[in-house]
Amino acid sequence: MTNQSIPVIINGAAGKMGREVIKAVASAPDMMLMGAIDTSGEHQGKDAGELAGLSEALEVPITNQLEPMLGYVAGERQLAPGVIVDFTHPDSVYDNIRSAIAYGIRPVVGTTGLSPEQIKDLADFAEKASTGCLIIPNFSIGMVLLQQAAITASQYFDHVEIIELHHNQKADAPSGTAIQTAQLLAEMGKTFNPPQVEETEKIPGARGSLAEEGIRIHSVRLPGLIAHQEVIFGAPGQIYTLRHDTSDRSCYMPGVLLAIRKAIQLKSLVYGLEKIL
Amino acid sequence: MTNQSIPVIINGAAGKMGREVIKAVASAPDMMLMGAIDTSGEHQGKDAGELAGLSEALEVPITNQLEPMLGYVAGERQLAPGVIVDFTHPDSVYDNIRSAIAYGIRPVVGTTGLSPEQIKDLADFAEKASTGCLIIPNFSIGMVLLQQAAITASQYFDHVEIIELHHNQKADAPSGTAIQTAQLLAEMGKTFNPPQVEETEKIPGARGSLAEEGIRIHSVRLPGLIAHQEVIFGAPGQIYTLRHDTSDRSCYMPGVLLAIRKAIQLKSLVYGLEKIL
Amino acid sequence: MTNQSIPVIINGAAGKMGREVIKAVASAPDMMLMGAIDTSGEHQGKDAGELAGLSEALEVPITNQLEPMLGYVAGERQLAPGVIVDFTHPDSVYDNIRSAIAYGIRPVVGTTGLSPEQIKDLADFAEKASTGCLIIPNFSIGMVLLQQAAITASQYFDHVEIIELHHNQKADAPSGTAIQTAQLLAEMGKTFNPPQVEETEKIPGARGSLAEEGIRIHSVRLPGLIAHQEVIFGAPGQIYTLRHDTSDRSCYMPGVLLAIRKAIQLKSLVYGLEKIL
Amino acid sequence: MTNQSIPVIINGAAGKMGREVIKAVASAPDMMLMGAIDTSGEHQGKDAGELAGLSEALEVPITNQLEPMLGYVAGERQLAPGVIVDFTHPDSVYDNIRSAIAYGIRPVVGTTGLSPEQIKDLADFAEKASTGCLIIPNFSIGMVLLQQAAITASQYFDHVEIIELHHNQKADAPSGTAIQTAQLLAEMGKTFNPPQVEETEKIPGARGSLAEEGIRIHSVRLPGLIAHQEVIFGAPGQIYTLRHDTSDRSCYMPGVLLAIRKAIQLKSLVYGLEKIL
Repeated sequence: MTNQSIPVIINGAAGKMGREVIKAVASAPDMMLMGAIDTSGEHQGKDAGELAGLSEALEVPITNQLEPMLGYVAGERQLAPGVIVDFTHPDSVYDNIRSAIAYGIRPVVGTTGLSPEQIKDLADFAEKASTGCLIIPNFSIGMVLLQQAAITASQYFDHVEIIELHHNQKADAPSGTAIQTAQLLAEMGKTFNPPQVEETEKIPGARGSLAEEGIRIHSVRLPGLIAHQEVIFGAPGQIYTLRHDTSDRSCYMPGVLLAIRKAIQLKSLVYGLEKIL
Repeated sequence: MTNQSIPVIINGAAGKMGREVIKAVASAPDMMLMGAIDTSGEHQGKDAGELAGLSEALEVPITNQLEPMLGYVAGERQLAPGVIVDFTHPDSVYDNIRSAIAYGIRPVVGTTGLSPEQIKDLADFAEKASTGCLIIPNFSIGMVLLQQAAITASQYFDHVEIIELHHNQKADAPSGTAIQTAQLLAEMGKTFNPPQVEETEKIPGARGSLAEEGIRIHSVRLPGLIAHQEVIFGAPGQIYTLRHDTSDRSCYMPGVLLAIRKAIQLKSLVYGLEKIL
Repeated sequence: MTNQSIPVIINGAAGKMGREVIKAVASAPDMMLMGAIDTSGEHQGKDAGELAGLSEALEVPITNQLEPMLGYVAGERQLAPGVIVDFTHPDSVYDNIRSAIAYGIRPVVGTTGLSPEQIKDLADFAEKASTGCLIIPNFSIGMVLLQQAAITASQYFDHVEIIELHHNQKADAPSGTAIQTAQLLAEMGKTFNPPQVEETEKIPGARGSLAEEGIRIHSVRLPGLIAHQEVIFGAPGQIYTLRHDTSDRSCYMPGVLLAIRKAIQLKSLVYGLEKIL
Repeated sequence: MTNQSIPVIINGAAGKMGREVIKAVASAPDMMLMGAIDTSGEHQGKDAGELAGLSEALEVPITNQLEPMLGYVAGERQLAPGVIVDFTHPDSVYDNIRSAIAYGIRPVVGTTGLSPEQIKDLADFAEKASTGCLIIPNFSIGMVLLQQAAITASQYFDHVEIIELHHNQKADAPSGTAIQTAQLLAEMGKTFNPPQVEETEKIPGARGSLAEEGIRIHSVRLPGLIAHQEVIFGAPGQIYTLRHDTSDRSCYMPGVLLAIRKAIQLKSLVYGLEKIL
């Protein structure tokens, strides 16, 4: 930790993702945790390290006020520009981002729920302020690599199906990420899976859900599964499979740290982890 | 090949399965190919070995008459009792079996299409004649082992889903074998996959087809796939997966040879490869 | 919980497995947690439920003395015979088991490290006392089902290899369970994988470790993996794969509860979960 | 087939790959098979289509002379420039390529065995002649996509292992393609798989072969397998797997056709399918 370290504030510090981020930032040699916000007030004054389950304190108390913290970090002029990581709530994330940009602090946002209009508006605001801002719906580098590799493969394969497998606590199917993969492939501008024969479903649903441009998604739900996605490309004589398995939230931390490092180099809003890989 | 060798006739010798059986019987040290029948008459007089693509002739000419061949093998009293392997046609298989039993030749039947009444009738006939007869809808030992292992696992796991994957020339979904696996599990007398949450399909069909007693089957169709089935059991903290991959017809031959060897020991009709494993 | 409930003591209650067992027994409708022992003394007097992370107390304080607890449960004559679950230490497990049997309490033992002589000796002791005792090296029902299915398959397949995959904190390779699977197959009395060609390793170790009777085990170690085993059988035209994935310790609890229920029906020592499936 | 069709000669037409190429070129709407060479002389005068198993003749007789065929195609001035596909023998491939370039016919070369010096020399020769030439060690688009996706992933993952699985007729291990994948990753300039613990092999070879820069390759050999490669990346909380399965030679044809189309646009030698994807 030096004066060149990136000062980092975590908003939503007491949540599951927030606690992971505390640990990740604390162990990053080029970052310095300067603030940890939990607006519930429930953990007010506790040490962020202890809250996150670290064996020693970080000397950063949990606070419930955003603006004073932004002002404090913005005022530390001898430091590098600061970054705020936001894992809060759809209701507050828009205001959080505007406040941060106003103070010159770069937002790295994992909170979902921003509308396209809000994102457009924030992009204009960041542009005018020449301040980097990253909105990242999925911090999993492995999943983004899978999707990028699938986009490349879709130029050479005309047939593809997706299987996603999750624990049986998950209510909706297909998973949002699998739908997103199908959309990314569909944007390539071709229709996949031209039929070879007239298909018959002897039991309805056998052939899965028809997502986009001929791409089918199959959703498996079982206890013991966590979160898995498989994209299977087929052509005569060959199968090419991309699979991503998530077992816990630690998998998102390399993406969070990468985003923090990129945020201080940017002068505008960037959407999606794939843009900074 | 000795006098103790099992004399074998193949009916449907010119078909894809028939040719495989010629090769398999020719290389079995305890069997002797004595006849090869193709009622189309198209390959009349050709050598069975050459028809099957063997490098040397077997000195067994293709014939188009069943009864004389049955009589010939039945008359070779110094030999062990004979077996006839039937891969013919739903229209002729019932008569073929009756004729064989009448001559004391044991049928090993891979032809599908017999009705439950026909099977009952043939069982009575075989019983009276004290003649073994095997009707085997699936000669794949690997698939039968998978189904048997799945039945055992279903006693200890309450959650299971099936994925079957085939080439995109296959018109029907789910595959007959996957439906059969679901039926075998359903016969265990419990309802699988008690729901943990209320599920919502954002795109219809995502959760696959609901086959039996809560068991879902997902059918993937892609060029490059051949024939694959996966049965996935889940419980908190663990997943147990059984998978069978077929790549060509040679996979059925160990089951055919096993059935031939068992047929000569039986005195009645037996249905299903699992009964003789 | 009724008078017919099975009284259960947990020895090693503060360990990772012990805490899981507390939770599992607490939620089993036919069991009653009566004692929780941790000989370290560190958690003396704490409530077992709270130690295990349950939201409410079980009114069972952690104690550090085995014999008084055995005496207490043995003395509750109006109850069913008691069971003690042992996840302690190789140094103490032998004495723990003898003490329990002496009190008429049935041991269910997950602690490893007993020698064959010790097991023989304990079997004699349990026999004389007509007291059930279960020694279970692996409580994972899924893994035992995999091994049993592999034993069955090995009668019909001559070719098999094993891949086991674990996190990169695991120091030894192959895993003990994979070696055990190979041993179980080797006990079937045949040599697997008769070579078809003379193999050459261009880089030493490519073909894995040669465990028993021609069976090779390959060990993969990566962060992100947890504990996985794959047994792959091959024959011309087909592959039959058995795979078990463990994601957390909860996977052992169905095996522990099954063992507790069986222990009270037994009158002698039984070794291995497969004996009671 | 029009005057704009690409004239194609196949050298090594009677080999397994040659026959596949005959079929692929015959069904490509933008290509015209003009010659088929088999220097063994064994199939002299047979029709190429019939040799390849097509249902109708292509009116292209097998010949055993290279130069006259090159001269013939080069002389058809009203046609597009010609391409010669070479699946012959390491002993003749160098001379074949020089002859083709001398006639202005573009070589597409799948034959292996050229030394680095020979490739350098051919590159100079093609450069001077301003003639495209493609040398493609692996025509499988799926495998090249896998390798490219693995190179990208290796920038973000520090841990990776490779499993390759082949039929048990394959004598050498690891497979050439798996070694190539490891080399491509190693060229990224980092050492993979920094050890977390001191590893112990209880049975030698368990941890596979150490190929390059810490990357381990595990080779499985079983009947029923065909040709499969799996590259597994691991990081805390996630696994990212790339898998390619080959089931028959038809999988190489999209790569061959792509190379033919690219060859006529090139003015120099290009090595590797990845350069033209």
